Amino acid sequence: MKELLLIPGPTPVNEEVLKEIAKQPISHVSKVFAGYIEKSIEYLKEIFGTKNGSIFIIPGSGTIAMEIALKNLLGKNEKALVLSHGFFGDRFLEILDEDGFQFDFIQSKWGEIIDLNLINDKLKKEHYEVVTITHVDTSTGILAPVNDYMRVIKEVSPDSLIILDGVCATAGVEEKMDEWGIDIILTGSQKALSVPPGLAILAVSERGLNKRKSLGKIGYYYGDLLRWKISMDDPTKYFATHNTNYVFGLKKSLEIILSEGLKKRYKRHFENANYIREKMENIGFKVFGDKNYLAPTLSIFLYPEGIDDEKFRKDLSDKGVTVASGLKDLKGKCFRMGHMGEVKKEELDYAFEAISSLIT
Amino acid sequence: MKELLLIPGPTPVNEEVLKEIAKQPISHVSKVFAGYIEKSIEYLKEIFGTKNGSIFIIPGSGTIAMEIALKNLLGKNEKALVLSHGFFGDRFLEILDEDGFQFDFIQSKWGEIIDLNLINDKLKKEHYEVVTITHVDTSTGILAPVNDYMRVIKEVSPDSLIILDGVCATAGVEEKMDEWGIDIILTGSQKALSVPPGLAILAVSERGLNKRKSLGKIGYYYGDLLRWKISMDDPTKYFATHNTNYVFGLKKSLEIILSEGLKKRYKRHFENANYIREKMENIGFKVFGDKNYLAPTLSIFLYPEGIDDEKFRKDLSDKGVTVASGLKDLKGKCFRMGHMGEVKKEELDYAFEAISSLIT
Repeated sequence: MKELLLIPGPTPVNEEVLKEIAKQPISHVSKVFAGYIEKSIEYLKEIFGTKNGSIFIIPGSGTIAMEIALKNLLGKNEKALVLSHGFFGDRFLEILDEDGFQFDFIQSKWGEIIDLNLINDKLKKEHYEVVTITHVDTSTGILAPVNDYMRVIKEVSPDSLIILDGVCATAGVEEKMDEWGIDIILTGSQKALSVPPGLAILAVSERGLNKRKSLGKIGYYYGDLLRWKISMDDPTKYFATHNTNYVFGLKKSLEIILSEGLKKRYKRHFENANYIREKMENIGFKVFGDKNYLAPTLSIFLYPEGIDDEKFRKDLSDKGVTVASGLKDLKGKCFRMGHMGEVKKEELDYAFEAISSLIT
Repeated sequence: MKELLLIPGPTPVNEEVLKEIAKQPISHVSKVFAGYIEKSIEYLKEIFGTKNGSIFIIPGSGTIAMEIALKNLLGKNEKALVLSHGFFGDRFLEILDEDGFQFDFIQSKWGEIIDLNLINDKLKKEHYEVVTITHVDTSTGILAPVNDYMRVIKEVSPDSLIILDGVCATAGVEEKMDEWGIDIILTGSQKALSVPPGLAILAVSERGLNKRKSLGKIGYYYGDLLRWKISMDDPTKYFATHNTNYVFGLKKSLEIILSEGLKKRYKRHFENANYIREKMENIGFKVFGDKNYLAPTLSIFLYPEGIDDEKFRKDLSDKGVTVASGLKDLKGKCFRMGHMGEVKKEELDYAFEAISSLIT
């Protein structure tokens, strides 16, 4: 039986990448290892759409990347505005709250985006030093209209620093850091970058780094981008030990991604998403969320009536296909299917076969 | 040519462990993955010497484990005492300083331990909520006499919480968390645990967890042990995404370690250390540090006269053997050799051959 991991991360990893990861570690400050970091930086810049942004590859999960972004851009007396489309947008609120920052938020209804007028009004009333956007919220499957949000933000509050959470987006949907005017894009290794979970990856604008410098001590030693920068600029310099083996894998995965070609890759994600959604609707599932803003990286399939969520996912898993449960209010009503990175049409066909055999 | 990584971490990884790491990721909240975490916890408890301690396996490097330990035990108006034997002891000072804590320190001369009277006097003068000890400081190769330090601390200041940095010690030298009365032992995956770098591992006493609870918000979302505890107690519950593949590898490595037997393993480390030191002294190297307190996990070999450090390490590396440079004042005067974890006598013989061919 084929084992197919179709949750919205971690995602399947190319065998070539796994082979790299299974090499013996080498010195984390050697010139050879520096080459892996330097190449990965070069490739990531292309994927993030940035020329002058600084890339950071830090051992940790996507969650630490979110906290790193906030702690390095926001002063204690400054305020953040969180634009939240769901669970992972709200996670910014949790972090801001735990970490003692001031913040406001605009939450969309789950499955929808935020009315541009609300953003406009909020930004006109008060200065927000940081605005966060979740590119794809893995809980709702909604793709934020970053371009539209950014147009409003740049018009009303051009000085606000922008954090874009790309965890379930980067390398599966286009990101144009420089063109959009984003200050930090953050992501994890285990989604459309197709590496196992364990790397927090960030791209930071010059404006973002200058802001970090102006903050002085941020009380956040390990996540201090200025400390990591020394080792990212010259990886033979030590700050903390890199995750050598995942960086081997990351470099390889980035090569695979770029050799597919970004445009082609994004198109494939888009087409595959439509492909599986149509098939699923034909057997009685509904796709959750506003049709105009569905992310190409995952789908949330609402069950036809009479399907027991736990049993369905268990039975599907017995057929080798693992999908994820819904979160919060959606729990029990749907399952979430990741279709990003290495997931191709054949895998979707395989999964669909298994799913439809359970339905009919 | 055989490639041999003899730096004091990352260290060589068993092929069985690499094979585990190269498996396809599975869901980080699945029951199967929970089994990997639960077994790893069980094994780690044995290695740390704790019955009731809580184990944490967190994506990140050893440095974040140090910061996590401090942030979870120390309040803003409380003071820490750092007992430092070198570069990595001093790293606690850097973190305390960056993170805005109050602290004092006692620094030994490099290569020596701290006079017990100094610890006694310091603790008698003032209350320190936290005391940190570096079990093996990788910069000096000194093994802290934890038992002796703890006797003084327990006598003079039994309420102080104790952090033991086991990064270059755990699984290479005995640690008795419960018996010694340690509140947090922290370590990284890439030293004597023989997994690539990328996991921060901590064992926390009940007293330590209670202290964390009493602190309320600690402004440190990702490194908050109370948030991780939910997912460590029941790994099917999500906090942040585990490093699935390294946990596969960790479980396997712990099995290898325990099947060797801890007593036997510690003895092997001790004997191998003596073995290589004697051979090296025979060809003109000197072992840095107080002979009574040398760590069994690494050695610092001072060059005979006339050896150029950079050239020597480069030539040795060309022969397939990678060692590390000295740090700070020792830079240029010595090299550091890790001989822990998977490094056996045969590897030491191989390295010695290469070294002696460069000397004579």
